[in-house]
Amino acid sequence: MSRYQKTDFPTHDIRRFLEPGPIVLVSSAHGDQTNIMTMGWHMVMEFSPSLVGCLISSGNHSFELVRSSKQCVINIPTVDIAETVVKIGNCSGSSVDKFTEFGLTPKPGTHVRAPLIDECYANFECELSDAGWVNKYNVFVFEVVKAHVATSPKLPKTIHYRGDGEFMISGTETRKWRRFFRPGML
Amino acid sequence: MSRYQKTDFPTHDIRRFLEPGPIVLVSSAHGDQTNIMTMGWHMVMEFSPSLVGCLISSGNHSFELVRSSKQCVINIPTVDIAETVVKIGNCSGSSVDKFTEFGLTPKPGTHVRAPLIDECYANFECELSDAGWVNKYNVFVFEVVKAHVATSPKLPKTIHYRGDGEFMISGTETRKWRRFFRPGML
Repeated sequence: MSRYQKTDFPTHDIRRFLEPGPIVLVSSAHGDQTNIMTMGWHMVMEFSPSLVGCLISSGNHSFELVRSSKQCVINIPTVDIAETVVKIGNCSGSSVDKFTEFGLTPKPGTHVRAPLIDECYANFECELSDAGWVNKYNVFVFEVVKAHVATSPKLPKTIHYRGDGEFMISGTETRKWRRFFRPGML
Repeated sequence: MSRYQKTDFPTHDIRRFLEPGPIVLVSSAHGDQTNIMTMGWHMVMEFSPSLVGCLISSGNHSFELVRSSKQCVINIPTVDIAETVVKIGNCSGSSVDKFTEFGLTPKPGTHVRAPLIDECYANFECELSDAGWVNKYNVFVFEVVKAHVATSPKLPKTIHYRGDGEFMISGTETRKWRRFFRPGML
C-alpha cells in the first residue's frame, strides 16, 4: 500500500474532500485501545470553525472510544485500498486490532491522540464540538482542528457507498460550469 | 430537458442515492410562493423512519419557506442539467421564480405541497421531523415520507460539489468488493 506525502491544508476548506460524499475511515484512541471504523453518514456543517456532523452508531466499538476521548481522525481512503475499507467495516474492534490486522500505519497527530492512517489521502484531526445529539441520533459534531492532505495527486479517487455492497467510484473532475457562478457563491 | 419516468421507491433505502453525496435541489412552497435551492451539505441519519439531516443557510430565501411550511422535496439532478443546477444556486428566489426562469416542471407530490422537480432523477417528499438545530446550525432533520425514483437508467450520473466552482461527476459503479461484506453488514 502506498503512503501519501502530505502537507498542511486549511481546515476551513476541507469541504473540498468531504462534500462530494466519500466513505471515510474514522480512527480513534482511548486508554490503551485504538480502532478504525468506516463511515458513510457525514456532512459538512460550517467553514470556520470547521464543523463536520458524523453518525457513529452506538453499536460500533468506536462509539465509546470517540465519546470518551472526545476526539477522532477522519481519514479519506482512495480506491486502491477499497478492499481494506470494506473489511474494516465488516469486523469489530472489540476482537480485532485493525491497524495490525490490515497492515495500516498509525501516525501521530499534532493535536489529538487518535492516530492518523498514513495510507489515506487525507487526515482530519477532530475534537468533539457538540455532543448534544449523541444520545438522540448518534450524531457527533466535530471540529476539524488540523488537516493533512496529500500533495499528489491533486484530487483523490474516492469510493462512495450506495448500500447493498455497491460502490460508486469518483469520476471526472470539471470546472466547466465555473463561469456560471457569481464570485461570492463559489 | 428530459423527464424521467418514475416509480415508487422504498423510503428506507434512499441512502442508495443520497449517501454517495450528490448536490441536490431542495424545492419548497409556502403561501403563494415556491422556490428551489441547491444543497451540498446533507447526510442520511436513519433508515426507518427515513431521516436526512440538511443544512439550509438562513441567508437563503428557501429557509423561511421550509421553516414555515415544515416541508420540502429533495430532488436529485443529473449531469445533463448541471448548468441549470449551478444557475439555481447563483440567484435568489426573492427576485426570481426559479421554475419559470429555468424551464423546470413543478409536479404535485402526494404527501407535501412542495412541488417535485420533474426533470430530476429522484424526488423525496419530506416533512420536518426535528427543528431543534435549526437556530443553532441551520440544520433541519427531515423524514422522507414518499420517494419517487426513475425506472431507467438504474443509477443516476450525479454531480458532486468540491467548492470553488469544481464538480466531480459520479463515475464507475461496482459490486466487486461485495464478497467481503458480511450479510448483516450490507
